[in-house]
Amino acid sequence: MGKKVRIGLIGAGRIGRLHGANLAHSVADADLVAVADPMMNDEMKEWAASMGIEKCYSDPDEIINDKSIDAIFICSATNTHADLIKKGANAGKNIFCEKPIDTDLNKIKETLEIVKKAGVKLQVGFVRRFDHNHKKVHDTVAEGYLGKPHVIKVTSRDPDHQPMDYIKVSGGIFMDMTIHDFDMVRYLAGSEVTEVMAYGAELSGAGYAELGDVDTVIVMMKFENGALGVIDNSRAAHYGYDQRTEVHCDKGCVQVANDRNDMSMISTAEGVEISKPTWFFLERYNDAFISEAVEFTKAILNDTETLVNGNDGLAPVIIAMAAEKSLKEGRPVKVGEI
Amino acid sequence: MGKKVRIGLIGAGRIGRLHGANLAHSVADADLVAVADPMMNDEMKEWAASMGIEKCYSDPDEIINDKSIDAIFICSATNTHADLIKKGANAGKNIFCEKPIDTDLNKIKETLEIVKKAGVKLQVGFVRRFDHNHKKVHDTVAEGYLGKPHVIKVTSRDPDHQPMDYIKVSGGIFMDMTIHDFDMVRYLAGSEVTEVMAYGAELSGAGYAELGDVDTVIVMMKFENGALGVIDNSRAAHYGYDQRTEVHCDKGCVQVANDRNDMSMISTAEGVEISKPTWFFLERYNDAFISEAVEFTKAILNDTETLVNGNDGLAPVIIAMAAEKSLKEGRPVKVGEI
Amino acid sequence: MGKKVRIGLIGAGRIGRLHGANLAHSVADADLVAVADPMMNDEMKEWAASMGIEKCYSDPDEIINDKSIDAIFICSATNTHADLIKKGANAGKNIFCEKPIDTDLNKIKETLEIVKKAGVKLQVGFVRRFDHNHKKVHDTVAEGYLGKPHVIKVTSRDPDHQPMDYIKVSGGIFMDMTIHDFDMVRYLAGSEVTEVMAYGAELSGAGYAELGDVDTVIVMMKFENGALGVIDNSRAAHYGYDQRTEVHCDKGCVQVANDRNDMSMISTAEGVEISKPTWFFLERYNDAFISEAVEFTKAILNDTETLVNGNDGLAPVIIAMAAEKSLKEGRPVKVGEI
Amino acid sequence: MGKKVRIGLIGAGRIGRLHGANLAHSVADADLVAVADPMMNDEMKEWAASMGIEKCYSDPDEIINDKSIDAIFICSATNTHADLIKKGANAGKNIFCEKPIDTDLNKIKETLEIVKKAGVKLQVGFVRRFDHNHKKVHDTVAEGYLGKPHVIKVTSRDPDHQPMDYIKVSGGIFMDMTIHDFDMVRYLAGSEVTEVMAYGAELSGAGYAELGDVDTVIVMMKFENGALGVIDNSRAAHYGYDQRTEVHCDKGCVQVANDRNDMSMISTAEGVEISKPTWFFLERYNDAFISEAVEFTKAILNDTETLVNGNDGLAPVIIAMAAEKSLKEGRPVKVGEI
Repeated sequence: MGKKVRIGLIGAGRIGRLHGANLAHSVADADLVAVADPMMNDEMKEWAASMGIEKCYSDPDEIINDKSIDAIFICSATNTHADLIKKGANAGKNIFCEKPIDTDLNKIKETLEIVKKAGVKLQVGFVRRFDHNHKKVHDTVAEGYLGKPHVIKVTSRDPDHQPMDYIKVSGGIFMDMTIHDFDMVRYLAGSEVTEVMAYGAELSGAGYAELGDVDTVIVMMKFENGALGVIDNSRAAHYGYDQRTEVHCDKGCVQVANDRNDMSMISTAEGVEISKPTWFFLERYNDAFISEAVEFTKAILNDTETLVNGNDGLAPVIIAMAAEKSLKEGRPVKVGEI
Repeated sequence: MGKKVRIGLIGAGRIGRLHGANLAHSVADADLVAVADPMMNDEMKEWAASMGIEKCYSDPDEIINDKSIDAIFICSATNTHADLIKKGANAGKNIFCEKPIDTDLNKIKETLEIVKKAGVKLQVGFVRRFDHNHKKVHDTVAEGYLGKPHVIKVTSRDPDHQPMDYIKVSGGIFMDMTIHDFDMVRYLAGSEVTEVMAYGAELSGAGYAELGDVDTVIVMMKFENGALGVIDNSRAAHYGYDQRTEVHCDKGCVQVANDRNDMSMISTAEGVEISKPTWFFLERYNDAFISEAVEFTKAILNDTETLVNGNDGLAPVIIAMAAEKSLKEGRPVKVGEI
Repeated sequence: MGKKVRIGLIGAGRIGRLHGANLAHSVADADLVAVADPMMNDEMKEWAASMGIEKCYSDPDEIINDKSIDAIFICSATNTHADLIKKGANAGKNIFCEKPIDTDLNKIKETLEIVKKAGVKLQVGFVRRFDHNHKKVHDTVAEGYLGKPHVIKVTSRDPDHQPMDYIKVSGGIFMDMTIHDFDMVRYLAGSEVTEVMAYGAELSGAGYAELGDVDTVIVMMKFENGALGVIDNSRAAHYGYDQRTEVHCDKGCVQVANDRNDMSMISTAEGVEISKPTWFFLERYNDAFISEAVEFTKAILNDTETLVNGNDGLAPVIIAMAAEKSLKEGRPVKVGEI
Repeated sequence: MGKKVRIGLIGAGRIGRLHGANLAHSVADADLVAVADPMMNDEMKEWAASMGIEKCYSDPDEIINDKSIDAIFICSATNTHADLIKKGANAGKNIFCEKPIDTDLNKIKETLEIVKKAGVKLQVGFVRRFDHNHKKVHDTVAEGYLGKPHVIKVTSRDPDHQPMDYIKVSGGIFMDMTIHDFDMVRYLAGSEVTEVMAYGAELSGAGYAELGDVDTVIVMMKFENGALGVIDNSRAAHYGYDQRTEVHCDKGCVQVANDRNDMSMISTAEGVEISKPTWFFLERYNDAFISEAVEFTKAILNDTETLVNGNDGLAPVIIAMAAEKSLKEGRPVKVGEI
């Protein structure tokens, strides 16, 4: 009782501040003591002060070398993740890292090797596993009373296009967007993906094709346990964040609808209107961001396995690569080919 | 005004009687005057009498040769469909034929050629197009205010296994079950399928594999208009007839949930229970069977194109063959390959 | 087996033809053999012929005196109901009578006395008891696993104003409209109403006040079994027929939402639209009209009590009178006062 | 920009800590600087420290006399509210006070007089006005496109019985529980209640009757603007916190369903299960507690009227007294009689 996890935050951009605020206010076992960001400035320091963070640095090494700090939250640019994990692991820190660990397979494997040797905890930020809805689907399947899974379905549509400048460096739709769904299907199926077949197209006319990218994909997959799966993605649903999952099992089906802004229904001669789904991930996964941080601190305090471990960080990257290959080559691709 | 379509029913089994009762009672423009069934017996005659049908025959030719009859409903065994259509067309009858026209591609084409030459109406019994729910999805897309379709999704699960004796002669899941969904995606997309990729498995352990068949399939497809589609099927949902469709377009999404037995909600400390989906096609598509017959009589009286014409009977058969080939060969198959 | 109930229909207006068509086509145990209407004309005869009805009369006595006829359906003007019931009962006919039996209490009691002496069946046309939704609420309460009822709630709103000429002779909102809900609360509570308190107002400005009537009422009531109830009515909901019931019991609650035209949901940036409730009683209670006729023929063939008997015809009239008195006098009125 | 409202919290029990945590973490414009509680002890001090509160007192006067403090949150026992408001007002503090202000009418009026003279802000803790669902109903009505309100309906059921020791001192169901709904109907109707008629009973057998109290009530009411209303309450719904509101207007209806724990649906041969409503007010009104505090600080910083002012604190108390009188005397009671 009373022992808290002392945490240093690395990266104070949008997602870093989101985690920072949660750690400061909503995670009882966390003590957020330091923040490091290469762009550290007065505005960031003010934010840090308002969160009760004592120490502000430009150099993340200051956090990594601080022996009083138990764990780090890596929320910096993707290309810094692997190095920070390695350094953190070598310094004995427990590590929460935003997804993806890296986009280079060998670098990820090498990084996980170091984490393993260091014996520290690693949790990757696949936040959707902590959403009340998807978790309910997972837990229902995992309880087992519906029998074994037959079909796993994920619909995942962003509300609207990101800026094309973002898309250009995003790594493509599979690595940037579908990767969350690849994590989700593994989570729901309780089994590994063995093969994928991807269809994709630019249908919005927003300019993805020029970048060699697409805005709409459907990906089918096979799982080790025999189940089949399918994901459909769109970059622009327009009506909000469409995040639905469904698993059909031996004895029945569990599925979730979207959260809505409210539970209203307005009925007139013109029609009946209900509320729109919540707009985007900040609204939909707000509580899930808190839960993943809570679970991370619990895993440290209770010395248990994190709920999204290193392999969970690696597997979706491999599947995304297989999906990309499938789309390019117009054929099903075994995950083992990657 | 006042002129009714005089109809002869060929085949008085389960589906024939369903159509017969609808024509007798619920289709204002229909006058059901004769029935023919090779097994014609006293029980059938009694049924015919109760429907106000004047003439009962063993031989369908009696109906086909009756010049006072305007149209025939072909509800006999599948392997008799093509020959009856040809005969009926040559005799100048308008024809409603239960699906499929045939399972042999050349025979279908030959049959349609004869129908074309004869200049008679042909409507194929893809009844789901007349369901209030799927029709709403179609009409919303067709109205055009959502823009062009991007993704067409169909979930279609039967409530429970058919007898294995039925499965053995069913022609396989694609030809027997998915064929309805292939029709549905064409109807919803307003475009032709150009390529399919099918995954399938036996997951229930009910014995499909021994027959070279599967109980679960997911089929992805591409459409001429650029849209992508996906169908998932199961032979045994257990909770009822799961029949949902969804189309995501430029500006939004239209989807339908299942009809339920009632709109109740029972809330206790144990949980909240709502009613199950309607059990099977007789319950779910009851009104749709009436509508398709109404539309058939209207097409005759107004001399308009039927809403499900010969090509609509042909196309899903070709797609089903492509899907089967895809499943067997483990690769995407162009519909043009068939 | 095989014995059918031979039925004569009295009154061939809107509701009479509705019952006639159901008896002709959808009630297996019914044989509709005659129709009588004081306005009998060629158009009515044509309708009768299309229903397979053999005999058409102007005088209902022709039906009542026809010894081959087992039962009559009284669908004539309200002020003829009581006399036709008496005549029918004296002639040994089983009787289905549209609601209300009469609007004069003594006349109703006298009529029921004659029915009782004659030993014939009487079923009153409170059709909502046969609706799949309300019946589910009733059956759930009656099964008993929720414990005893605490609160019975009924929302009942017509889609739009009836013509003021209709309202003028309607007997007022309680006798014309709420009477169905007074039947419903007795049915759901499984207990008699002992006291009512009514609030009412004209809020639409459509002209009810000039006729001494109202368009909006809320009525609270007490039941013999201790439960409390409340009904709210409106003459003009505008969005369709709003027909919801709810019973809260010892251990939980059962409630039903409205049937809708379809189960669609259309989502765009502008909002999310679902389908409107069915428009009015013909759409909503279509199947219930069939069920009440089926149950009537069953009661005759099996010699069981009808599901809506004479007392069920009387009680709501008394409650409606009490409600009217409560509204006029601005105080709760015991049903026993009437 | 940057000016925050310096707040002192009076009362650090359950509801005080709830507000304290919100002010500390979730209300950007609030600076929670002090807490006072007559039972101040080490555990409370530890809680205060964890919230970043600098000063802890036993005596609320320490807060009231602290000139650096702009506003107070009164979360102490009900019988201390009026005196603390008076003292606070006289000291120039803006005041947030948990409901009710008092249970003695004259004391409330006297208190409001002092607040008025002092010219400070007063907001009463009717938190449900800030709930996303009820607010949507209110806002839709207030926008006016549905026309004027006809019927206001509130269902409000607690999940389970409070301890009888609590009930004994609760002031009765109207003052303790329905008072929230009396506030809600005023809020939704945008009009004052002029008359009420209450029915009530003990139906659970939990012991309310012995205390002269009831567990189930239905209250009808009339509004100044002509609308009618009805509230139904139960002390023990068992399935969760049932909090639904509905307003029927000239042109249609706006209503809200309950929030649920998640949006899941589990379908099997046994039935279809959806999630239960959130359990109680902490779950359901969590975000509303934050919103009311945010709005309070905004009203201070922008010098605008609070959204729940002194009269909003007074009116429901009067209506509750009228309802109690109605129940005791078995007749409708004008609010003006109180």
